[in-house]
Amino acid sequence: MPEKFIAVLNGPNLNLLGTRQPLIYGSDTLADIERLCDATAGAYGIGIEHLQSNHEGELVEAVHRWRESALGFVVNAAAYTHTSVAIRDALATIEGPLMEVHISNVHAREAFRHHSYLSDLAAGVIVGCGIEGYRFAIERLVTLTGHRPKEA
Amino acid sequence: MPEKFIAVLNGPNLNLLGTRQPLIYGSDTLADIERLCDATAGAYGIGIEHLQSNHEGELVEAVHRWRESALGFVVNAAAYTHTSVAIRDALATIEGPLMEVHISNVHAREAFRHHSYLSDLAAGVIVGCGIEGYRFAIERLVTLTGHRPKEA
Amino acid sequence: MPEKFIAVLNGPNLNLLGTRQPLIYGSDTLADIERLCDATAGAYGIGIEHLQSNHEGELVEAVHRWRESALGFVVNAAAYTHTSVAIRDALATIEGPLMEVHISNVHAREAFRHHSYLSDLAAGVIVGCGIEGYRFAIERLVTLTGHRPKEA
Amino acid sequence: MPEKFIAVLNGPNLNLLGTRQPLIYGSDTLADIERLCDATAGAYGIGIEHLQSNHEGELVEAVHRWRESALGFVVNAAAYTHTSVAIRDALATIEGPLMEVHISNVHAREAFRHHSYLSDLAAGVIVGCGIEGYRFAIERLVTLTGHRPKEA
Amino acid sequence: MPEKFIAVLNGPNLNLLGTRQPLIYGSDTLADIERLCDATAGAYGIGIEHLQSNHEGELVEAVHRWRESALGFVVNAAAYTHTSVAIRDALATIEGPLMEVHISNVHAREAFRHHSYLSDLAAGVIVGCGIEGYRFAIERLVTLTGHRPKEA
Amino acid sequence: MPEKFIAVLNGPNLNLLGTRQPLIYGSDTLADIERLCDATAGAYGIGIEHLQSNHEGELVEAVHRWRESALGFVVNAAAYTHTSVAIRDALATIEGPLMEVHISNVHAREAFRHHSYLSDLAAGVIVGCGIEGYRFAIERLVTLTGHRPKEA
Amino acid sequence: MPEKFIAVLNGPNLNLLGTRQPLIYGSDTLADIERLCDATAGAYGIGIEHLQSNHEGELVEAVHRWRESALGFVVNAAAYTHTSVAIRDALATIEGPLMEVHISNVHAREAFRHHSYLSDLAAGVIVGCGIEGYRFAIERLVTLTGHRPKEA
Amino acid sequence: MPEKFIAVLNGPNLNLLGTRQPLIYGSDTLADIERLCDATAGAYGIGIEHLQSNHEGELVEAVHRWRESALGFVVNAAAYTHTSVAIRDALATIEGPLMEVHISNVHAREAFRHHSYLSDLAAGVIVGCGIEGYRFAIERLVTLTGHRPKEA
Amino acid sequence: MPEKFIAVLNGPNLNLLGTRQPLIYGSDTLADIERLCDATAGAYGIGIEHLQSNHEGELVEAVHRWRESALGFVVNAAAYTHTSVAIRDALATIEGPLMEVHISNVHAREAFRHHSYLSDLAAGVIVGCGIEGYRFAIERLVTLTGHRPKEA
Amino acid sequence: MPEKFIAVLNGPNLNLLGTRQPLIYGSDTLADIERLCDATAGAYGIGIEHLQSNHEGELVEAVHRWRESALGFVVNAAAYTHTSVAIRDALATIEGPLMEVHISNVHAREAFRHHSYLSDLAAGVIVGCGIEGYRFAIERLVTLTGHRPKEA
Amino acid sequence: MPEKFIAVLNGPNLNLLGTRQPLIYGSDTLADIERLCDATAGAYGIGIEHLQSNHEGELVEAVHRWRESALGFVVNAAAYTHTSVAIRDALATIEGPLMEVHISNVHAREAFRHHSYLSDLAAGVIVGCGIEGYRFAIERLVTLTGHRPKEA
Amino acid sequence: MPEKFIAVLNGPNLNLLGTRQPLIYGSDTLADIERLCDATAGAYGIGIEHLQSNHEGELVEAVHRWRESALGFVVNAAAYTHTSVAIRDALATIEGPLMEVHISNVHAREAFRHHSYLSDLAAGVIVGCGIEGYRFAIERLVTLTGHRPKEA
Repeated sequence: MPEKFIAVLNGPNLNLLGTRQPLIYGSDTLADIERLCDATAGAYGIGIEHLQSNHEGELVEAVHRWRESALGFVVNAAAYTHTSVAIRDALATIEGPLMEVHISNVHAREAFRHHSYLSDLAAGVIVGCGIEGYRFAIERLVTLTGHRPKEA
Repeated sequence: MPEKFIAVLNGPNLNLLGTRQPLIYGSDTLADIERLCDATAGAYGIGIEHLQSNHEGELVEAVHRWRESALGFVVNAAAYTHTSVAIRDALATIEGPLMEVHISNVHAREAFRHHSYLSDLAAGVIVGCGIEGYRFAIERLVTLTGHRPKEA
Repeated sequence: MPEKFIAVLNGPNLNLLGTRQPLIYGSDTLADIERLCDATAGAYGIGIEHLQSNHEGELVEAVHRWRESALGFVVNAAAYTHTSVAIRDALATIEGPLMEVHISNVHAREAFRHHSYLSDLAAGVIVGCGIEGYRFAIERLVTLTGHRPKEA
Repeated sequence: MPEKFIAVLNGPNLNLLGTRQPLIYGSDTLADIERLCDATAGAYGIGIEHLQSNHEGELVEAVHRWRESALGFVVNAAAYTHTSVAIRDALATIEGPLMEVHISNVHAREAFRHHSYLSDLAAGVIVGCGIEGYRFAIERLVTLTGHRPKEA
Repeated sequence: MPEKFIAVLNGPNLNLLGTRQPLIYGSDTLADIERLCDATAGAYGIGIEHLQSNHEGELVEAVHRWRESALGFVVNAAAYTHTSVAIRDALATIEGPLMEVHISNVHAREAFRHHSYLSDLAAGVIVGCGIEGYRFAIERLVTLTGHRPKEA
Repeated sequence: MPEKFIAVLNGPNLNLLGTRQPLIYGSDTLADIERLCDATAGAYGIGIEHLQSNHEGELVEAVHRWRESALGFVVNAAAYTHTSVAIRDALATIEGPLMEVHISNVHAREAFRHHSYLSDLAAGVIVGCGIEGYRFAIERLVTLTGHRPKEA
Repeated sequence: MPEKFIAVLNGPNLNLLGTRQPLIYGSDTLADIERLCDATAGAYGIGIEHLQSNHEGELVEAVHRWRESALGFVVNAAAYTHTSVAIRDALATIEGPLMEVHISNVHAREAFRHHSYLSDLAAGVIVGCGIEGYRFAIERLVTLTGHRPKEA
Repeated sequence: MPEKFIAVLNGPNLNLLGTRQPLIYGSDTLADIERLCDATAGAYGIGIEHLQSNHEGELVEAVHRWRESALGFVVNAAAYTHTSVAIRDALATIEGPLMEVHISNVHAREAFRHHSYLSDLAAGVIVGCGIEGYRFAIERLVTLTGHRPKEA
Repeated sequence: MPEKFIAVLNGPNLNLLGTRQPLIYGSDTLADIERLCDATAGAYGIGIEHLQSNHEGELVEAVHRWRESALGFVVNAAAYTHTSVAIRDALATIEGPLMEVHISNVHAREAFRHHSYLSDLAAGVIVGCGIEGYRFAIERLVTLTGHRPKEA
Repeated sequence: MPEKFIAVLNGPNLNLLGTRQPLIYGSDTLADIERLCDATAGAYGIGIEHLQSNHEGELVEAVHRWRESALGFVVNAAAYTHTSVAIRDALATIEGPLMEVHISNVHAREAFRHHSYLSDLAAGVIVGCGIEGYRFAIERLVTLTGHRPKEA
Repeated sequence: MPEKFIAVLNGPNLNLLGTRQPLIYGSDTLADIERLCDATAGAYGIGIEHLQSNHEGELVEAVHRWRESALGFVVNAAAYTHTSVAIRDALATIEGPLMEVHISNVHAREAFRHHSYLSDLAAGVIVGCGIEGYRFAIERLVTLTGHRPKEA
Repeated sequence: MPEKFIAVLNGPNLNLLGTRQPLIYGSDTLADIERLCDATAGAYGIGIEHLQSNHEGELVEAVHRWRESALGFVVNAAAYTHTSVAIRDALATIEGPLMEVHISNVHAREAFRHHSYLSDLAAGVIVGCGIEGYRFAIERLVTLTGHRPKEA
């Protein structure tokens, strides 16, 4: 594990990214997200711990594993955003800040996607920016954790 | 007016930014936002048209003024986010994409701030990133309008 | 001001009529509405006072200006229909009858357009008849104010 | 049956019109409505098929009878407006446009009259114009079906 | 038709009374109800016009037939109690008072039976008294229409 | 205490009956109710235990006192109908049947009077019959407890 | 009437099947349904009594007619599924089991089609299987009434 | 501007006071309110800054203008009470206490007047006391800001 | 009892005033309220009848006792404000006007304190003014009952 | 009064315990509860002050009496749990901790028993443990008030 | 894996089938379901891939595994039907049609079982047909995928 | 496995107990809970089977494993309490009684923690008693399963 790292968690079905429903999710893949995150954080000397899982419990345990050591978390909990109190409770224990990301614009989709169990715990929420949202989230964590000078 | 520009609209009370409720909104001012937007867009050869207004009707008319000519809009409608169908209807007519920005994390505040009349029209929504959210929004517009190469 | 007149108020974004979203609103313009109203009322020797505004307060004040002198009001408050108690309160003070008009069929659109703050104050409501709805509204006011013989 | 006709359907209790609750419904009778419709359409060389029924099933079947042959429908479903999915389903199959009419202003009456199962299927809705609303509805159908030159 | 009469209307499925679900409705039959009503009213020199129908429209039309001539109405609209605005609208036009009757205790059954479209129009409502409820309803109409001396 | 009796409980403000709001409650007094109940039950050799109280706790305790010995209860809990789970819980323990009475038609009054905590426990409910409702309730208890031959 | 039979009831507008809205309902007709039902049941020596009606009351009375004699009921109440307590009350009295059928997938349509007054009374519900749903429903009744050996 | 002053803001339609709907609002005028406020505050050596506006944005800006300098605010936002988050957000930044005033008893009027976006920010709320409510509000501010000895 | 008096009723737990939760209720005691009321009314030659009770029934009966004789009522029903239909029904019978008082700002507390069963019956409501609210309420009653000249 | 004591309050109808509805409440009596509480607390040298009342006001006043002197409270408010803000407000003033007890499992009963006005004030809530729940509640108070060593 | 196959997924607790709650679920076992599915599909030369899991994530991944290769899916998600957006999102990516099955009649059980996150994605839904529902579902997939001639 | 045992299940994030959010959950650890449970049950010659899991499916399967053999279950499902129908369905099949435990007072936390999918299945529910709640739950199971003499 790198000395300084950000944990990036991706939830259920995101392993299919780039193959399913491109009109909603675009053609980028999970590997593209990982590369983008690595590059973005790397520019600040920060590493990334990646985890994609379709299992709520694994996501909970990934939070446990990194909750004290990570500088911060970037979480796209996908479907679990709307149903998982367990992931919320885990994220309530992390020491660094949380950034929530959604690739598509959840506010323009079904009503059940308009509520997130995570948002009120997050420092910020990035919605509908495609995989570029991960870059923004990491840059925000860089700012929040004091690894970058405040912009004019 | 610059040949290529993005319209950045700020809604009611944002002229007080940096002076009121710093625990919620931070110490940056509206002038800081404007400088940040100018710098961010300027790096891509794009200008900014700024407007802050406390009047719903002026915001509607600013949308009318730039709806065809702007590359895209960055809108922080502040309180009008939650109450203005008029601004929504205006933004439904713009030709470029819309990015919605909120400086504070509205999801962690009063319930009436959890609904936005704009979000389902937006390409993306940036919440709780302080004034850095404007930078993200402009960068996203740069990407969406093809002014910047896709990242790895 | 003509001796006898009807006040015709049009709300926010209606100045764009004919240019925005023609699938919803058609290709007629605000000038077309004004000509149609003038012609319809003129046939009965009645004038029209026109006002279009994107400002809630200006619409309130237009009601104040003509509330005692107008034979009646034709109001298409557009977005303010669904959000403005202020315009409602102003219209509650007019001496003649009120006709509410919507160009598109609001009942076939978003749920927030199904409620009107004006309808229960109105004598009648005309929805989804395009700009012809203004003609119907004026003819109804003509009937209600006794300027035309009852039809068989 | 005339070569070209509009179907005018009136729902339950409208046979009592002019005798019951004149403060709400006025003193015009069903025969007055029929005469007004005949005259209005007749001026354009169009006939009317009339049906008043207190039976939901008869109204459904009247729609079936004329759904392909009528230029359009004018429907005042009265109480069934608020309770009949069956009439809605029938009207969803008609080939011409539908105009919905209510004599009284349903928006100023009991809450259960504020919802209509028909409105989102209709081309337009005319509320609270007394029997004159039928004239407006027929004139609108005349316009929609191309039997009358567009007004200035 | 007797000179003085009360109209007693029974709604859908009441023709099965005494045969279906005796635990809910008891073993009395519709004929028992009719005999009881005739006897109760007869003691005051008042006749009864009976109608049971499974058709909403027939119930509407029975109200029309007797709305001016009946001293009052006793109505057990059964299932239509909870769904028929048409019967409500018809009963809003009767000249005498209305008594609403339910044989079983609707308040102890499914939630959709807790609302009646008729109750706010009624002079009184008798629930859960078996067929004896019809006797009470008729006696109340006798009192309300002045055919019986006020009790101590 | 009579050997056989019915308990008649009247709730808050009913001691004012005949003096307050006669348009809603009529001009009969509590004493009139008591005389009517005594006479009605007396004809069957049954006595009445009367209690009027403005105190929820006293009504609870009156139920306790007579819950095993009374043939049945007639309860007009007035305002406590809509707010008292305590009286409901007490009445759930009585051995005989319960008849609920309301003098006025609660269904035609404020929405908060449309729900009763007692109705689903009752054998029957008599609403809007003035003080005659008490006579009906007692007669129904007479029937239910087998003190009177079933009518034709 | 055959000695052993299943009653198959079809509700309003199903007489139009195959002609209206083929994208929702397909191209099969009511006659196709009848042939399919006859063939399916016939294979087990069971007949079918068919009824299609647009009248709620006729459907109620068809249930009455066959409620004791039919082996079971297959009911597609169409629009009345969502609005008819009367048909529900009739079906609560049948002696055999009830199968509810919908040709289209009601769960993918308007919200008011998501509730059925019949489903909790039914043995089973078949949704969105086109007219093949009738075959499944009859086969299930065959199983439930012991006319066919349990499958492996 | 006086050295010490209270800001008194009146919202939309209050310029009509005394002329519209006297049964609801009485016959006092806006000038009467201003005289009463001046006299009340003047007795304590305190001035008043008055503003009436029909424009939400002007009210927001009046709050901005006096938010730091005023001893406190008395606000009757009229219709904007129920719809304006913008005015709420402005009032959340004032340094002195806020008193909310309504001339009529909003709790006895339409349901949409029962909610105020301002009340939870206010020190106190005065409802239904006519223009005398302004006197009470100013006296309360006098007390809260220590300009008057505590009463026995 | 004084010839002319105002009844001042205080509800449950107000006997603890000044001792419990001073951050919410301040340090004034019930005796302070009584002294303030006596002094305020005494200045106009009016007496006060005081009652504090923790019993809903006693408050109901205090209303009965003074409902005809009191010039008006000042009621702080405390917790019973939100739960007592019985006190509401009693107050609906008083001859003079009712002023409702709450010491703390109920609108800034739990949601169940935002509804009052009394407010729509009241002439006015004073919220969050500490014990000074009683003075305002009495002064308003003095005005309403004509014991004081209208202010400029 | 013992030097150290716990107040145990039992609400309405609990005096009937052991006699009413044994399937819900079991066969233990109020005397059994009292004996159990005395024994449990006695083992720690702590006394009990018992009060059972059917009167909301008496329960409020019992809280007042012991609010400063009791080590803590054990409260089974029975029906008042769901309706009494007055008891809640009293309990908000106690100095020691509050334990809420329900003998039956309220979560498995009517929906109106699922909400408690007391639970969010309580240190703990014991539901459905029969009278043993009182033992647990007292033991918990013993722990919370430091009268017993923490268990392994 | 067979060349042509249908995926049959069974959700949590279905491994207990035949042992738990036989009144609700019957005595058939999961092995019976598998045999029935194999036999039904086998008759058309189609294989079955079976998976039962109590883990949401495993069900998601089973969908991923077969989403492109399966002719279609038969899914009884049991409890996850009502809570899993993750399984919904996975099923939204399958290439063939989806049939949803429930062994018991979910509409006759607790309210939380009336909503399914899957139904609007499904081609059809089979409820309450015991394990025979799986046969129907497979036969419907056979029809939908063109492996069987359309029935008369 | 011991001959007689109680199953104690702990849900997601409880492995962190004592380390996260001590203000809410205290400083006891999961190992403390296990020791306390072992000691409490051991005193009655009963063993404990422990399982903590962050995986919903593992908790379901733990219930399956012990559902027939355990004397009873003590379940603190933590976050899954509020979201898991799967665990509920599993627990509906256990042979012994269920005790539900929550360490913190869920009623004083977020609204989504006020509903439990387990409570109506449980014999009892212990909330907010810290880890002592497990001792109470086990003692209650001891009582319910007849392993301990009834207390006085």
